[in-house]
Amino acid sequence: MKNNCVFCAIAAGEIPCFKVYEDDLVLAYLDINPFAEGHTLVIPKEHSTGILDTSPETLREMIVRVQKVAARLKDVLPCDGFNILQNNGPAAGQTVPHLHFHIVPRLGSDVAADISFANHPGDMDHLKALAERLRF
Amino acid sequence: MKNNCVFCAIAAGEIPCFKVYEDDLVLAYLDINPFAEGHTLVIPKEHSTGILDTSPETLREMIVRVQKVAARLKDVLPCDGFNILQNNGPAAGQTVPHLHFHIVPRLGSDVAADISFANHPGDMDHLKALAERLRF
Repeated sequence: MKNNCVFCAIAAGEIPCFKVYEDDLVLAYLDINPFAEGHTLVIPKEHSTGILDTSPETLREMIVRVQKVAARLKDVLPCDGFNILQNNGPAAGQTVPHLHFHIVPRLGSDVAADISFANHPGDMDHLKALAERLRF
Repeated sequence: MKNNCVFCAIAAGEIPCFKVYEDDLVLAYLDINPFAEGHTLVIPKEHSTGILDTSPETLREMIVRVQKVAARLKDVLPCDGFNILQNNGPAAGQTVPHLHFHIVPRLGSDVAADISFANHPGDMDHLKALAERLRF
């Protein structure tokens, strides 16, 4: 656990989250400023900053959790597709320096070529109810 | 190999590409309509459409190749950060229905919150020279 890392604090249960999935290695929870309905983050419990300072073994385990959580979102939500996005560094829009994969459900089949990853402030009551539906 | 799949044809060598990396399982090459300089795609040679119809074993191997290629891009290019993006379905902006991970190098540390993933037509001579610098 890294000092002053908000995602480490969430993983340790010191800061609450709208949990979707948890096991020994990862935690998945709703982004409170979602790009879209059901926007979920998957993080490793052990701290690393991005994909380059994470061990290949951890990455292998992360990606199969991302797959599991994505399948769950697609089963429960209205969801015609989804993006998996993992940002490395402020230049790439990474705002929290703890490895995380975004899973972003999408609706509709005729979207613009330039998919938006802009945050929208979430409603806490809505997110709580949504996490309860999604949790597995 | 799936009939009429352009990425299967690239993986089979039937359609040329600006290759960056290749091994038994994956091929990595420059996107010819890049989001940014050095935008590289990593695809499995065996056809699947997206993350949900790919075996966990293949995903595990894919993500460590994505890590390797990202490290190479960061070593060779001016690159302050990078995005890893994997789109599933037209609703998520997926235009070729063969699994692919985008690696998008980024410059600068004070980008807008909404990173752009808009395509820009590439210059073929420039891409050829860039691939030669990046190949490993």
